[in-house]
Amino acid sequence: MPKDKVSFTLKTPKGTKDWSGSDALLRDRIFTTIADVFKRHGGTALDTPVFELREILAGKYGEDSKLIYDLQDQGGEICSLRYDLTVPFARWLAMNTDVRSIKRYHIAKVYRRDQPAVSKGRMREFYQCDFDIAGAFDPMVPDAEVLRIVSEVFEELGWNGRYTIKINHRKILDGLFAVCGVPEDKIRPISSAVDKLDKMPWADVRKEMVDEKGLDGAIADRIETYVMHKGGRELLNKLLQDETLTANASAKAGLEEMALLMDYLEAFGSLDKISFDMSLARGLDYYTGVIYEVVTEGSAPAIQSDAPEAEKAKKSTKKAKTSDDDDRSNDPTLGVGSVAAGGRYDNLVGMFQPKAQIPCVGVSFGVDRIFSITKARLEREQSTEGLRSSEVDAYVMAFGGKGFTGMLKERMEVCQKLWNANIKAEFSYKLKPKLPQQFKAAEQGSVPFAVILGEEELAAGKVRIKEMGLPADHPEKEGVEVELASLVAEMKSRLAQKQAGVVDSLAQQLQSAQV
Amino acid sequence: MPKDKVSFTLKTPKGTKDWSGSDALLRDRIFTTIADVFKRHGGTALDTPVFELREILAGKYGEDSKLIYDLQDQGGEICSLRYDLTVPFARWLAMNTDVRSIKRYHIAKVYRRDQPAVSKGRMREFYQCDFDIAGAFDPMVPDAEVLRIVSEVFEELGWNGRYTIKINHRKILDGLFAVCGVPEDKIRPISSAVDKLDKMPWADVRKEMVDEKGLDGAIADRIETYVMHKGGRELLNKLLQDETLTANASAKAGLEEMALLMDYLEAFGSLDKISFDMSLARGLDYYTGVIYEVVTEGSAPAIQSDAPEAEKAKKSTKKAKTSDDDDRSNDPTLGVGSVAAGGRYDNLVGMFQPKAQIPCVGVSFGVDRIFSITKARLEREQSTEGLRSSEVDAYVMAFGGKGFTGMLKERMEVCQKLWNANIKAEFSYKLKPKLPQQFKAAEQGSVPFAVILGEEELAAGKVRIKEMGLPADHPEKEGVEVELASLVAEMKSRLAQKQAGVVDSLAQQLQSAQV
Repeated sequence: MPKDKVSFTLKTPKGTKDWSGSDALLRDRIFTTIADVFKRHGGTALDTPVFELREILAGKYGEDSKLIYDLQDQGGEICSLRYDLTVPFARWLAMNTDVRSIKRYHIAKVYRRDQPAVSKGRMREFYQCDFDIAGAFDPMVPDAEVLRIVSEVFEELGWNGRYTIKINHRKILDGLFAVCGVPEDKIRPISSAVDKLDKMPWADVRKEMVDEKGLDGAIADRIETYVMHKGGRELLNKLLQDETLTANASAKAGLEEMALLMDYLEAFGSLDKISFDMSLARGLDYYTGVIYEVVTEGSAPAIQSDAPEAEKAKKSTKKAKTSDDDDRSNDPTLGVGSVAAGGRYDNLVGMFQPKAQIPCVGVSFGVDRIFSITKARLEREQSTEGLRSSEVDAYVMAFGGKGFTGMLKERMEVCQKLWNANIKAEFSYKLKPKLPQQFKAAEQGSVPFAVILGEEELAAGKVRIKEMGLPADHPEKEGVEVELASLVAEMKSRLAQKQAGVVDSLAQQLQSAQV
Repeated sequence: MPKDKVSFTLKTPKGTKDWSGSDALLRDRIFTTIADVFKRHGGTALDTPVFELREILAGKYGEDSKLIYDLQDQGGEICSLRYDLTVPFARWLAMNTDVRSIKRYHIAKVYRRDQPAVSKGRMREFYQCDFDIAGAFDPMVPDAEVLRIVSEVFEELGWNGRYTIKINHRKILDGLFAVCGVPEDKIRPISSAVDKLDKMPWADVRKEMVDEKGLDGAIADRIETYVMHKGGRELLNKLLQDETLTANASAKAGLEEMALLMDYLEAFGSLDKISFDMSLARGLDYYTGVIYEVVTEGSAPAIQSDAPEAEKAKKSTKKAKTSDDDDRSNDPTLGVGSVAAGGRYDNLVGMFQPKAQIPCVGVSFGVDRIFSITKARLEREQSTEGLRSSEVDAYVMAFGGKGFTGMLKERMEVCQKLWNANIKAEFSYKLKPKLPQQFKAAEQGSVPFAVILGEEELAAGKVRIKEMGLPADHPEKEGVEVELASLVAEMKSRLAQKQAGVVDSLAQQLQSAQV
């Protein structure tokens, strides 16, 4: 065991970080919220290895394949760290051909050897939360449930409509490019230029199409008449009446599926969360049907105004609809990036095993971005909930005069009672801790209750419960004495009251934020 | 996007596996149980990257370092996959010198490029659940809480005493080896031979000491008089009266700490779970104080008898105390391996950063083994709880006669109601599913309730709730009609009843197992 002084820098690898304290706790709560929604929809967990045989990942990510982390060949198989959770899921489906339908979820880290931008939250190791439905079903039914899940997740996270689910359809895009006269071999590059409309004004996108990608300017102008549109049913109905567009079989099929999807989303109560966005194209090659991306303005740090965010979100969506370039460049959603994205991918499993071919639709939540936005919101609201580093309910402490023994075993016995009753409790590891030290520890941990033992009180079978942080004039400021035998019951009722109070205050905050 | 047929084997890398279905769900429940105990004791989450700079891991694992997975140098830092969660925790403490005390937990995968034995559960990728307390405190107080956590975890997992927490102390071992006359340079190898007493009879261990490690036979015989002992306070008191042993300062200090530990474990109500086992030595170099390991006979497949396992466990412990070699070789704990292990390591953080030196004590739970044992127990008890692959509460279905529309949107709307009330619900993705198909899907998922829509009933504002799996003569076999408006309330009350029933039946099973 070498005891020499170390001669290297103590750090985590580039683009990775440790998660600790209140950040780790808040992120865990986000995971739990998301997983609860997944389970509510019958999702079953799938956990795959963090590395895959390199051949599994090969040919799936286009030029991003260079970002894959490879393991060293140490005399075994050639493996790479997973780049996402979708390809491992497809590999699993291809291996388990008896599974003809499944709703699976997977919450795990993925790895991309990208240039990290830690301050912007672009990391080399980050979490994804994926939900996917595999199986051959009637059109758009599972697609609608995935989108219902998306809105349910953000509502449960308390975003209250402060997000937009942009949807589009690959078949509509393919059809409109054909109708506009884009040559077959230019459809992919032109599609990827269109996808940049959330970051760049139309003039720049047009420039890329014409100058860089050699598209005829007249064709670009025809594309503009379509891709600047956003809306709901009224946009869909307008497009369904566009005879040029519906003459194209692909566009027609896509629009009809979109109509079906909107019907189903209405039955699910989620239609109002959706924006049909003709400029959404998404990068990945494997999407074959409906595609979607969730954006929010919540993380834009420049906004200092106190205007309710739900209003701002609505405003920005409306503005964007006017297809005014200046408005778009002020769009607070610009540059924030998506917080969830997905779509239908009907051919990916067949790439591994043609016989195992099975259609899929799914979504991936970007937890790191969701975390940053949620944390910023909690900080703005100065909510202490969710920013603690542990969830301890009670700090068990003791005090005494001259000859004070410290009452260590008594504190341990009281902790035992609380733990047995599933109450989270801590105590000082010192034999004879001073009372102020114990209070300080409880305060530092934002522990809501102190359970105080005194030698005389305990001899009479009593202990004191003190709620922390009460105002000086509160009648229970000094705590209340209770029978040791009823400590658990007293604590449980106080914790329930406290919990109810927190819920009330959160509900109030929410209401005031929505005004 | 290549569409060619694949030419490689579809598999996961050697020594890794996918977790899906009921196995994944059961393992998740084990994680939740363990994490709940950790949080009850004030644990805060720490999440470190899956890979570390290679220098961080170097020199920590002795000859096991050859099992570390290295990442390829792709023009950046040299990194390796973590081998355990302890060294990353120590690295984090060394980097965060403002943290002078912390209780941290970490549930994550670790990687060892060992020869895998999948059938025995020895994998290259596996989960560990760690809880550690760092900080300079009064002796044995945090150590006792870690052991309390160990017993709490296994009680919450329903093992009801069917496990033994073996404890020993590095200082006692060092002292007794010195007293017996083991030369300084042979203490580590002799210690590792003693540690094999849970897998080998004494005669074989003695042979290894004398023949392989060149120890004097008389010294080995003196060691035997100590290391074959197991017990509780009575053993400790006997050793405290052993003047030869207590003349050694290290042994004396270790025995006194052990006495303190037992006092504290008594105050925590956990002393009866402990066996002071003089043969426990543990492999890792970095332990400096109390060490422990949890063993169980629960996974031994050979045992076919129906005798209550708690009894068998006690019996086996008693037998082992007789230090009869034949008895030991029949010890049902042999070959099972430990399900949790840990100890005090006061110098590890200082290896990274002498100024950051901070004493630590902790435990690691081996979830894969805990999973196998728990699964075997559930299968023996033919419990259906815990073996489902999802947790769906209700399957929403529809039926109708001639001209049946399938009622897809109506099923969607009912699902929406249930989801909004946090009830887990599924429905068929077919436009016009047949009733037997829908029942089959509900049965396959062990869904406890069907919510059945009929066109006439729904027009009258009613739906039918049918509990699945009722006997043919049950009065509610065909289900009960309820108002659609009160569906959520009716479902909630039925789910609560069902839940209470499951708890009752588990409690009964438990009682009969304990007789």
